[in-house]
Amino acid sequence: MTPPTLLITLGDVAGIGPEIVARAWPKCLEFANPVVVGDPDWVRHGAAQAGSKITAWPVESVEAARPGERLVPVLPVPSADLSRVKPGVVTPEGGRAAFDYLAAAIRLTQAGRADGIVTCPLHKEGLHAAGLNYPGHTEILADKTGTSKYAMLLYDDELPLAVAHVTLHCRLKDVFANVTRDSVLEKIRLLHAIVPRLTGKAPRIGVSALNPHGSDGGLFGDEEAKIIDPAVDAARAEGIDATGPVPPDAIFLQARAGKFDAVVAMYHDQGHIAMKLLGGRRAVNVTAGLPIVRTSVAHGTAYDIAGRGVADPSSLVSAVRVAAKLAASNGRGTRDGGHGTREAGHGTKTRP
Amino acid sequence: MTPPTLLITLGDVAGIGPEIVARAWPKCLEFANPVVVGDPDWVRHGAAQAGSKITAWPVESVEAARPGERLVPVLPVPSADLSRVKPGVVTPEGGRAAFDYLAAAIRLTQAGRADGIVTCPLHKEGLHAAGLNYPGHTEILADKTGTSKYAMLLYDDELPLAVAHVTLHCRLKDVFANVTRDSVLEKIRLLHAIVPRLTGKAPRIGVSALNPHGSDGGLFGDEEAKIIDPAVDAARAEGIDATGPVPPDAIFLQARAGKFDAVVAMYHDQGHIAMKLLGGRRAVNVTAGLPIVRTSVAHGTAYDIAGRGVADPSSLVSAVRVAAKLAASNGRGTRDGGHGTREAGHGTKTRP
Repeated sequence: MTPPTLLITLGDVAGIGPEIVARAWPKCLEFANPVVVGDPDWVRHGAAQAGSKITAWPVESVEAARPGERLVPVLPVPSADLSRVKPGVVTPEGGRAAFDYLAAAIRLTQAGRADGIVTCPLHKEGLHAAGLNYPGHTEILADKTGTSKYAMLLYDDELPLAVAHVTLHCRLKDVFANVTRDSVLEKIRLLHAIVPRLTGKAPRIGVSALNPHGSDGGLFGDEEAKIIDPAVDAARAEGIDATGPVPPDAIFLQARAGKFDAVVAMYHDQGHIAMKLLGGRRAVNVTAGLPIVRTSVAHGTAYDIAGRGVADPSSLVSAVRVAAKLAASNGRGTRDGGHGTREAGHGTKTRP
Repeated sequence: MTPPTLLITLGDVAGIGPEIVARAWPKCLEFANPVVVGDPDWVRHGAAQAGSKITAWPVESVEAARPGERLVPVLPVPSADLSRVKPGVVTPEGGRAAFDYLAAAIRLTQAGRADGIVTCPLHKEGLHAAGLNYPGHTEILADKTGTSKYAMLLYDDELPLAVAHVTLHCRLKDVFANVTRDSVLEKIRLLHAIVPRLTGKAPRIGVSALNPHGSDGGLFGDEEAKIIDPAVDAARAEGIDATGPVPPDAIFLQARAGKFDAVVAMYHDQGHIAMKLLGGRRAVNVTAGLPIVRTSVAHGTAYDIAGRGVADPSSLVSAVRVAAKLAASNGRGTRDGGHGTREAGHGTKTRP
C-alpha cells in the first residue's frame, strides 16, 4: 500500500519548526510520503541547528518529490524575505511566511495533490505583526476551506484519548459567551464522527462541566443545568454515547481509567493541562470537521530554545502518524500516483 | 516524642467520612494521637460499612481519649437528630451536624486542647439546606478563627508540591473580579510562609497565568500584564523566589520536572485538574494562614459510593500525616499531656 502524501508546513521559521523537521525526518518516513512546504534554506538551517545529515531538496511540485532517509523534498513557497529573521525573534516576515506556507498546503490538498497537512507551530504575534488577524492555524484552515463547524482536538494515540474544546484561543473571560447548548452539542457530534477514524469504534464521550465540582448542584453557577445537561441529552437522543457534565477535575481521571475514549472540554486549559500531564509530548492536534486531513504538533514555537537544536521532535512524529491514519480512513493514502516511489536504496522501511 | 493530638471531624455522615475513618484508622495511629469529633453511632455505621473491627468509644474530653489499634475515641457533639439520615442523601441534619463537629473542633484546638484538625468531607448542599451559607469547611474555619488572609492548598507530600488557589469555590465567571495584584501576592506570601514547615526549605514558587498560553503576549487577555506580572515583581522585591506568569498548561509539567516546589493557581480547576492527575489520591488540603493547623481529605463526600465500604482512605491517611508534620513545626505535637499514652498492647508502632 502506498503511504499517504502529507505536506509538512514549516511554520514560523524563527521557532523550532525547522529543527524538529530535521530531527523527526527519518521517523516520519515510516508512516507517510512527506513533503515539506516552506523555505529550503530554513530547512538547511534546521538541519545545521540539529546536527542532522538531511539534505533539503527543492522540488517543483508535490508529484516530483521523492523523499528519502536523508533527502527532504521541499516545495518552496514565494513569500516574505526571511534573510533577516533570527531564531527566537518575532517578525512580520516570519508570520507572513508561515501563513503563506499553510495557504499553499491547503490549496494543494484541496486540489487532491496531497492527502493531508501536518503543521509545525507558528507564532501568533508574528501573524498579527504581518496584519493577519487569525488566532492560529486552525482558524486559517477553517476560513480557507469554508468550514464553520470544526474543532481542534488534542489526541493521544497511546491512551487513546481525544479531547475537543468548545472554546480555545480566547480570553478566559470570553469563554462564557461561547459555551452554548449548540456549541457543546456540535463538539460532541464532531468527536462522534472523527474518533472512529482514529480508534476504529464509536467513542464513549465524557462532557466536562464548566464550574468547579460541576457547580455542586447549582451552588457555583448554572451553565451545567442550563447548557451542558441539555446538550448531553440532545446528543444521547441522537444515539451518541455521551455522559456529563462531569466535574472538570474528575473527568480526566475517569478517562485515564478507561471510562471515556473522548472528552469535551469547555476551554483551552481544561483540556490542555490534563492532556499535557497525561500524554506529555505524545499528544497531537487534530482539526475535526475540515474537508481535509490536518494534524499539528501540540506545542508552540518555543522561541526560548529555538535554534539550539534541542527541541523534542516526538509530537511531530506523532502528528505525521495520526495524519496518515486519518488519510487512510478517508479512503485516501492508497493512491498510486507517480509520487509513490522513493529514492533508491531507501525503500525497505516498514509501512503500516 | 509524644505524637500530636489531632481531631478528625466526621463531616457529613451521609458521605464516605465514617467509612474512611474506619478504614484509615490503624494507619493514622502511626503519625498522631487521633480523636474523632462527631457521632459514635455513625462511626459504628462506618465500621460496619467497611467491615472493620474498630470499636467506637465515646469519650467525655479530648484528654480522656486513649486511641488504640481498634479503639476509636469519639467525642460526641450535640447536634441535629441523625437517625433518619441515609448514606448518599442530602439532608439539613447532615449539613448541620458537619458544621457543629467542625465548630467544636475549632473551639478545642483554639483552646490548646488539641494540636490540629483533620476534616472529612461535608456536602455543600447539606450545609445550605441547614441554612448555613458557607461554601465549605475552609470558609467556616476562616470565619470562626477571625482569619481574613488564608488559602486552601493542595499538597502532595511525595512530589512534594503545594498549590495555592487565588479563587476557589466560586463560579468560573466570578474568578475575574477576585484575581487582583493583591490577592495573587497574598497567596505567594502564604506559600512562602507555610511551605518551609512542610519541606524544610524556602519554596521556588511558580505563578500561573490566567489565560491560555499566558495570553500570548496580550492577544488573549491582559490579566497577565496588569495583575500577575506586578504581583510576581512585588514578591521578588520581598525576597521571595517567585516566577511567572507561566502558561497554565506548562506550569505543572515544570513543577513535576522539579522546577517549582509550589504553584499559585488562579482558579479551582487549574490546580485541581493537575494535582489529581499528578498525585491521585495522595493529595491533601492544607489551610494556610489560619492560627491553627488544619488539613483535609482532597475529595468530596462521594455520595455515589457512600455506605458501600469501598471508599479509598489514602487521602485521610495523608491528611493526618501532613497535619502531624505541621503541628510538629508549630513547636507543638511535643506536648506531654495526659492524653499521650495509649491503650495497653498498642504502644509498639513506629513514630516519626
